[in-house]
Amino acid sequence: MKERGQMAGKASLRFFHPPVIVSAASVAGRKEGEGPLGSLFDQVEQDDMFGTDSWEKAESALQKRTADLAIEKGGIHKKDLRYLFAGDLLGQLIATSFGTVDLKIPLFGLYGACSTMGEALMLGAMAVNAGYADQVMAMASSHFATAEKQFRFPLGYGNQRPLSATWTVTGCGSVILAGDRKSGMAKITAVTTGQMVDAGIRDSMNMGAAMAPAAFHTIEQNLEDLQVEENWYDRIITGDLGKVGSRILVDLMKEKGRNIKEIHMDCGIEIYDPNRQDTHAGGSGCGCSAVVLCAKILPKLLAGEWKRVLFVPTGALLSTVSFNEGQSIPGIAHGVVLEYMGAEG
Amino acid sequence: MKERGQMAGKASLRFFHPPVIVSAASVAGRKEGEGPLGSLFDQVEQDDMFGTDSWEKAESALQKRTADLAIEKGGIHKKDLRYLFAGDLLGQLIATSFGTVDLKIPLFGLYGACSTMGEALMLGAMAVNAGYADQVMAMASSHFATAEKQFRFPLGYGNQRPLSATWTVTGCGSVILAGDRKSGMAKITAVTTGQMVDAGIRDSMNMGAAMAPAAFHTIEQNLEDLQVEENWYDRIITGDLGKVGSRILVDLMKEKGRNIKEIHMDCGIEIYDPNRQDTHAGGSGCGCSAVVLCAKILPKLLAGEWKRVLFVPTGALLSTVSFNEGQSIPGIAHGVVLEYMGAEG
Repeated sequence: MKERGQMAGKASLRFFHPPVIVSAASVAGRKEGEGPLGSLFDQVEQDDMFGTDSWEKAESALQKRTADLAIEKGGIHKKDLRYLFAGDLLGQLIATSFGTVDLKIPLFGLYGACSTMGEALMLGAMAVNAGYADQVMAMASSHFATAEKQFRFPLGYGNQRPLSATWTVTGCGSVILAGDRKSGMAKITAVTTGQMVDAGIRDSMNMGAAMAPAAFHTIEQNLEDLQVEENWYDRIITGDLGKVGSRILVDLMKEKGRNIKEIHMDCGIEIYDPNRQDTHAGGSGCGCSAVVLCAKILPKLLAGEWKRVLFVPTGALLSTVSFNEGQSIPGIAHGVVLEYMGAEG
Repeated sequence: MKERGQMAGKASLRFFHPPVIVSAASVAGRKEGEGPLGSLFDQVEQDDMFGTDSWEKAESALQKRTADLAIEKGGIHKKDLRYLFAGDLLGQLIATSFGTVDLKIPLFGLYGACSTMGEALMLGAMAVNAGYADQVMAMASSHFATAEKQFRFPLGYGNQRPLSATWTVTGCGSVILAGDRKSGMAKITAVTTGQMVDAGIRDSMNMGAAMAPAAFHTIEQNLEDLQVEENWYDRIITGDLGKVGSRILVDLMKEKGRNIKEIHMDCGIEIYDPNRQDTHAGGSGCGCSAVVLCAKILPKLLAGEWKRVLFVPTGALLSTVSFNEGQSIPGIAHGVVLEYMGAEG
């Protein structure tokens, strides 16, 4: 395999046959549609129930619609998709289980909390680069109402939220990766797999603080493994650290002598307008980085406006059970290097 | 890729550099220790709490202990394990998150319900065969008390269980896969990735019936993809169909003109003595197939008693939320072809 890819450092892989993102689709909810990226999503659904009678069925319908749209936009035959790498935030991945059953595609169910889109892209790229598949789909979703119901309070309580809290994005992003293509939106040239990082944070209303140390660890590992400096990237884009977590990340990097302030972007900060939308620290959920990837990051790479991006979806392993038992909230983050297709593109 | 492995049929891969299982460890609970396989487990823990103060911490302690034991038995340095592919049954994979945080190994968190050990072995083998890692760990666990608490009734209720119900295994199995080795317990020569199969079963106390159609689908796919007949295998071993699901599987195969009755084995049936242990249809949980793999299947392959086994962990995507909303219970099963190392072993 020396021929197909190369282990780089402790936790990274370089791909010699970089998988190409040939299609991407994003479907978002009404609130996301009213935000700064509203016009960039492929579809904005005004009905939070997506025409179903439960929040969970709504999230499944969201996944199904996004998957179908990515297939349609790519002009791909469903039967040519060899594997599906997907997940969501719900127990037993029910949004994915029920949302993808009709696709009849071999499925790898993943759980990385809000880092799931990173995990899906990474495993999908590993499969394509190794020649295990010609075309695969990577997908992740979240829904504000299913997440609040599972992790926090019934919506009807109208609970007050502290300023460090984030707002779970209703949205789904789906990407199709293909091998040995000359054109596409971007290529995946390397990946860095994150490890669990437990910084001892116990505040479930401050997930940014729980995830920032994991993002820091993965970014540092990526730079070390690939032996590059932070400015090798046009952007280092985290998933859903929000305002609080982003500040912590920038500070942690600064302590290491790295200034990422100018090149750092966070999908959770991008997706809402905090002045107009009352979302406090920003957006979160697997769907947050997934829709921002499809609606904003990939188009910028396609246009060549950015040449190289380190995409780092971040996850907080929040569980009501472990939280109520007094446990901390460990974090994880996965890094995916996305590059402009360039002249060969 | 053509050089390292080959796509076979619709959902299978053949490995040209078969990853070798160089170490395996099993830790089981007291009830499992009293069952027919009791003497085969590496460790039987008499304390269901594993020295902690909650069921969830107990399951994390179980994972940690099993991982450490697999590392120790293999004479491996922890730092040489490049990736961990792991999961459990709990929401947000808390047994894995907290159980593996100290390992500090890049983690792919997986959810395939009780098929997780199959998913972990499959992805681990794909990574090793592709040259992405020299050594990786695949691990899955379950705990009777955490599963009952999450999926069914508080234990204190002393609920009656129908005869079709299974008993969640308290146990963890951990396997270390390595590349390009001449000796080991067994090698993984091919894998078949399952898809979600929804047979419309709505009885959460009959998970065998929910999973049997998925097992059937994956076994048929495997035979078709590899272009072999069922008797190419010495054993076809399902995860936790139990007595009811196993009968359905054998019947479904029979309708296809295949007689697997003599070569079929089910980990859920193996692990308990239904006459003495009041476990009804058998054992279940991610830990069920994981411990039976490590304690019984791999030793038989090492001894050459079996030359070729199709190992098919089965999962039922049961969720209390979707179940209470009237949804069915889809199933999934993943197939892993395990072979005797033979003369080269």
